[in-house]
Amino acid sequence: MNGAESLMRSLVKAGVNMCFANPGTSEMHLVQAIDAVPEMRAVLSLFEGVCTGAADGYGRMKQTPATTLLHLGPGLGNGIANLHNARRAGTPLINLIGNHPLYHIEYDTPLTSNIDLLAQNVSSWVKGNSTATSLASDGMQALQAALSPSLGSGGQIATLIIPADACWGDAAGVADALPMPVRSKVDEAIITRVTSAIDSNTMILLNGDGLSLAARIAANRIAMKTGCRVSMTPFPSRIDGGAGAPACERLPYFPEHLLAAMQGVTRLVLASAQAPTSFFAYPDSASYLVPDDCEVITLSGMAEDTTEALLAVADLMKAPTQGYAVNEHSVPECSGAGLNTAAIAVMIARHLPENAIICGDSGGGGAAYVPTQSALPNTWLNLTGGAIGQGGPAAIGAALACPERRVLALLGDGASMYTNQAFWTQAREGLDVTTIIFNNSKYGILETEYLRLGVNEVGDRAAALFDLTRPVIDFVVLAESMGVPGRAARTREEFSSALQLSLSQPGPFLIEARL
Amino acid sequence: MNGAESLMRSLVKAGVNMCFANPGTSEMHLVQAIDAVPEMRAVLSLFEGVCTGAADGYGRMKQTPATTLLHLGPGLGNGIANLHNARRAGTPLINLIGNHPLYHIEYDTPLTSNIDLLAQNVSSWVKGNSTATSLASDGMQALQAALSPSLGSGGQIATLIIPADACWGDAAGVADALPMPVRSKVDEAIITRVTSAIDSNTMILLNGDGLSLAARIAANRIAMKTGCRVSMTPFPSRIDGGAGAPACERLPYFPEHLLAAMQGVTRLVLASAQAPTSFFAYPDSASYLVPDDCEVITLSGMAEDTTEALLAVADLMKAPTQGYAVNEHSVPECSGAGLNTAAIAVMIARHLPENAIICGDSGGGGAAYVPTQSALPNTWLNLTGGAIGQGGPAAIGAALACPERRVLALLGDGASMYTNQAFWTQAREGLDVTTIIFNNSKYGILETEYLRLGVNEVGDRAAALFDLTRPVIDFVVLAESMGVPGRAARTREEFSSALQLSLSQPGPFLIEARL
Repeated sequence: MNGAESLMRSLVKAGVNMCFANPGTSEMHLVQAIDAVPEMRAVLSLFEGVCTGAADGYGRMKQTPATTLLHLGPGLGNGIANLHNARRAGTPLINLIGNHPLYHIEYDTPLTSNIDLLAQNVSSWVKGNSTATSLASDGMQALQAALSPSLGSGGQIATLIIPADACWGDAAGVADALPMPVRSKVDEAIITRVTSAIDSNTMILLNGDGLSLAARIAANRIAMKTGCRVSMTPFPSRIDGGAGAPACERLPYFPEHLLAAMQGVTRLVLASAQAPTSFFAYPDSASYLVPDDCEVITLSGMAEDTTEALLAVADLMKAPTQGYAVNEHSVPECSGAGLNTAAIAVMIARHLPENAIICGDSGGGGAAYVPTQSALPNTWLNLTGGAIGQGGPAAIGAALACPERRVLALLGDGASMYTNQAFWTQAREGLDVTTIIFNNSKYGILETEYLRLGVNEVGDRAAALFDLTRPVIDFVVLAESMGVPGRAARTREEFSSALQLSLSQPGPFLIEARL
Repeated sequence: MNGAESLMRSLVKAGVNMCFANPGTSEMHLVQAIDAVPEMRAVLSLFEGVCTGAADGYGRMKQTPATTLLHLGPGLGNGIANLHNARRAGTPLINLIGNHPLYHIEYDTPLTSNIDLLAQNVSSWVKGNSTATSLASDGMQALQAALSPSLGSGGQIATLIIPADACWGDAAGVADALPMPVRSKVDEAIITRVTSAIDSNTMILLNGDGLSLAARIAANRIAMKTGCRVSMTPFPSRIDGGAGAPACERLPYFPEHLLAAMQGVTRLVLASAQAPTSFFAYPDSASYLVPDDCEVITLSGMAEDTTEALLAVADLMKAPTQGYAVNEHSVPECSGAGLNTAAIAVMIARHLPENAIICGDSGGGGAAYVPTQSALPNTWLNLTGGAIGQGGPAAIGAALACPERRVLALLGDGASMYTNQAFWTQAREGLDVTTIIFNNSKYGILETEYLRLGVNEVGDRAAALFDLTRPVIDFVVLAESMGVPGRAARTREEFSSALQLSLSQPGPFLIEARL
């Protein structure tokens, strides 16, 4: 058995059996190993950002890592943007990056580059000097690292940069999985302090493990007892929501809206969350958005067991165990007329199948969040890191992780173009993904942000950099070129009919909403 | 005047007036500055790898840098692959990367990452702490760095990571360009030594400045005098060739072919070139491909004036000044029948307009190199760094640098997909780019490399990772979705007719050769 096969067999034995691949010459022994180990499913994408985004979506749903398989520095480079999102989401993920043998590096051949530097940008664990005899156990270290609770923003991305001779040399055998890490417990004194501190002017801010169903139930029990507010950060990686789920406010994106939402809060309890800050900096606006007179208490960090801590606080204050706030079920109505973002959001909520997974991105889709919280139970995967082009790839990973659930990818026209190759993999794998593109033919967010500079009229040369009308992109034709059928919708009726058609049949489908 | 405007005005004053842009919120003041400085042309692309590849193509043709304008770490990440190619090509290029103000970094907001680390992977110069008063002069330092002759593989990429407050704060004014660096002279003693060493068993290996027309003429004069061979490295960044250009062998890609080409060479003179090595490493094959009994003499490195050095050698040995070998003009004939790579290569050579620029990539197009050397004068831009997805973007840059010249982009089907968004910019700018996709519906090079492992039959699961038939991509439809018209060709007649149609009309066109 060579190193490559020992790695694949060890990963499979440890429960890692999904590989999002775009290999090159230096990964051919890893391809050969995939061929020899049928328990490892390999899914081809035609661009590495699709591989990494798919691995992110998969890891968020499974809570166990998929691997990528990428070609040297440029292959990793193409995957960086969606790895950035995965890092911010704390997604467990293992990158397998091929490299030349280390003895070949000194010749500085065309594809040689400092892959370690690239990997450090997105990884909390990197190893680049495996040998054929260490590769299997290095893979098990990568798995352990990928399952270690996030340290700050360190994420849970483990990157194994594999010299080709570690693949083709003789292995020591299959390696066993290492002990799986567990979240550390929150100190008893902090539990006590938080319990006595929470009052009706308190906001408990949830993120990460603090957004588990059990954690949200505990937080809402605390709210019943104290009258405090329970909120989540603006872009949490995953929210299991919809009717019946514990209710939870979501903090808004723009700083002035966020500050308004914080008004009257005199105590902020952070549960796996960072204190609110401005997503971007602006000339006359603060970065740190906690009001001056607000006390901040950290209940738990990303690596701690927040669920257990919130439960302990709720129990310690003898909060009631029933009657906490949950999302009510309601069938929303579309007011007004014409096809717009708000109308689409309501139609999505109205027709959403039970247990659908909704993958967000930049550009319109976020409007569906609120209406879908009163729809049938569903899961949202958000654009946690702000690197657009996540939704289509994440939908691939989510669909492969949960083949019994319908996946919706809600994409802006601009965002969808960064990773349009996602359509091809959706077609190849026959995935139940409904992609909805909110096509307003511009980078709408940039136009908004530009106007925030205080410029009242956008000059032609600036406007050209936000404009996607010259030429207009025909997304139905684009998807069709890669094997995904679709329809354009210009009216509510057309949209509703296209959505119901897609939801009634298996396989991928595109709806281009022309706004 | 704010910092952003001072930077744009300084760049324009120094002759940098092309910006390949995909901005985000943190670059809005730079967009505002572009709006205010009409001499700076901004070209929008919908994916950052198109911006960086276009800047590479532009810089190779102009020998003066374009800038990119990219959004934080993920934007730079998406541009890394084509920056890798630009680095390997020694292309002058300036990256302008927006960042949060440095005071905002400590809050570790969603889009924060270590951009410096990313930039170092591809840049020979990086600065990340500009202020509003330093930004203009920092831009002039970036320009000086971008025009400094390559140091080894350091490339000439300068990356200015710009804190947003350096853009919006008050500037010190417009900065003047710094003195432009010049290549250092080769030592007299080395000239003398090389002059006496060259004999009929010598190969002069050219790259970089050694491939200027003057350098190649000098090398061919030396060949007339001594009987030595004159060769170029396998993937030089730019070759001005075709009929009438100085003749020059090109070393092949696979190590066994390269070793065969080196047979009988007992002395190798390196003129801005590295000694031949294997592009990839293989289990039973050497990395260093110079025969054991071959002496290696370095005439000049990448940063030295190789043209002058070769001229000095030629003059010192009193090599004749006329009668050196040039490419003969001939109109090639297509042998055999059916549409295949060789037939397409011949048809391209036959119909090539004078001064066409040909942008290569992985997958078939390279076959046109030899026949086009006897066609009308032309320029090749090669895939120097091996990161596929270069050809379409580079064609954009080449067409904008040389609007009077027709550009051909020769792309494999696999390669074209990494940066298919190039079509959109070609359509928007109405560029005279003829894209030819060699569609064999597979990653052909990987199938070849896999078989080189010694596996005689490719298993189904491995084959699936090279296969692009499920689904088949319709490139004509894909290009059409982004506003580029095209035709599919299944026969020689169809191909020839589509090629002549495209060459007879302005604007972009796609020909999908179905092989």
